[in-house]
Formats: sequence, C-alpha cells, structure tokens
Amino acid sequence: MNELRSLFETYKKTVYEKDIDGFLAIFDEHLQVFDMWGRWSYQGLQAWREMAKGWFTSLGIERVVVEFDGSEATVMGDMGVATAFVIYTGVSAEGRKLRSLQNRLTWVVLKKNGVWKVIHEHTSAPIDHSTLKAILNR
Amino acid sequence: MNELRSLFETYKKTVYEKDIDGFLAIFDEHLQVFDMWGRWSYQGLQAWREMAKGWFTSLGIERVVVEFDGSEATVMGDMGVATAFVIYTGVSAEGRKLRSLQNRLTWVVLKKNGVWKVIHEHTSAPIDHSTLKAILNR
Repeated sequence: MNELRSLFETYKKTVYEKDIDGFLAIFDEHLQVFDMWGRWSYQGLQAWREMAKGWFTSLGIERVVVEFDGSEATVMGDMGVATAFVIYTGVSAEGRKLRSLQNRLTWVVLKKNGVWKVIHEHTSAPIDHSTLKAILNR
Repeated sequence: MNELRSLFETYKKTVYEKDIDGFLAIFDEHLQVFDMWGRWSYQGLQAWREMAKGWFTSLGIERVVVEFDGSEATVMGDMGVATAFVIYTGVSAEGRKLRSLQNRLTWVVLKKNGVWKVIHEHTSAPIDHSTLKAILNR
C-alpha cells in the first residue's frame, strides 16, 4: 500500500485544486478507463484529458473533496493493483458541503522509469436489479 | 493475451454449463469483487460461491451465453490484468435468444503454483448522468 499511497494523495490534491496537468501525471499515456459516467471507455491520455477538463470546468467555483475508504493494494515487482471506495463531496467556495456520492475504484499500475503510472482505471457504483438505477451510497 | 485466454474460455464454458465448481476454479481464495449488481463488494471465495449459486439457480432451465469483445491484457511476470466488454445473452432451453446485456470487465490475476487466479474482478455498466440509470448496451 505504502508504495501506491502517493497516487491516492496526488489524486485527492489535484482534484481539489482542479489541476489538470497534476491530475494527469499519475496516468499512463496509453491508459484505458472504464469510467462510471455516461460512456463505455476512454482510450489514451488525450481522451482522459478532455474528461478532466470537462469535469473541472463544470464545477465552476465549487470544489470536490475526495476521500478514500477501505483501500487495498497488491504489488509484485513493477506491477500493482489498488482498490478503494471513494467518497466525492462537492463543497461551495466557502467550504460548505453541498452533496456527496461514492464509487468503487480499481487502479492497475505499472512502474515506468521508477514512477508508478495508472494503465487502467475502472470506477462504478452497483446497480439495483429492479430499478436499474445506480446505488450511489454505501 | 494468450496466457490469460484460458480464463475467458473457462468463464464462458462454466457459465453456460452452470458449473459452480468449474466457475470458481479461476478465482483466488481471497478475491475481492466489485460486481455490477446490487452490492458494493464481495470478499473471499465463499461469498462469491453464494453469488454464483444464486445466479445459476435463478436461471432455471435457461442458459447464459457469454461472449467477450475487445479484450486486452498486460502480463508482467506473475501478475496480469485483462479487460473486456462482455455480452451476456439469456437463451431458452431450446436455444432461443431471450435477452442480452453488456458490461465492462476487469480481472487482476496472479500466477500461483503455475496457475492464473483472479484476485480482483470489477464489472459495471456506465451510468447515465441525468437518469442515474445503467446503460446496458454499447
């Protein structure tokens, strides 16, 4: 876990700061993302940059506070996996909590030139069988 | 990919045959699953066995045909990841197609005593932002 902790810290910090380049720095050039929202997959960093730009821009003056719960990691040599439950809380410019939702995160990582990079991200919420709606809180 | 292909083949075959022990053979004792349906996570093979039993039993005399599309894999030493879009088609006892849905699959695998085992599975469908409903077909 310790080896991969900096990925979580960078994600949390750069999302809060809406820092696109800092955010993208933890992802590999050729990453594949199965994202929770609206679309089956993203291929490559350029597509993921567009997503990040859209997300951060849509926030306006609000911010998103990210917390990780129940994180687990397995590392073997230069490959690893990290999983967690993630809590996203939207806050106003004054820091007031506006809304909150959770998802499940899987990161598959490779160490390239001594630096861990996410080559695959999968985020989701479970789906209720009868309503087919996402269950957004544990 | 070739190295991990047998996992896909076993999954497909054992789901079709509703063969619980064969199905579970590709999973590790301590696996963690983020499943698409109804629940945030499963920990360990016993919990996953209960899921499989419930799934296969619920099918009655129907069967499920599994197909994998756009599969990708990365292996480094004794660790790997495989991803795919999965098409599940329910068929009647006579082989007539009843319904079909798709999801996104991530498998993280470790080679233990020469055998690949899934230590983490994550399946999901993307969620529509406005309705919060799952998008069940690409």
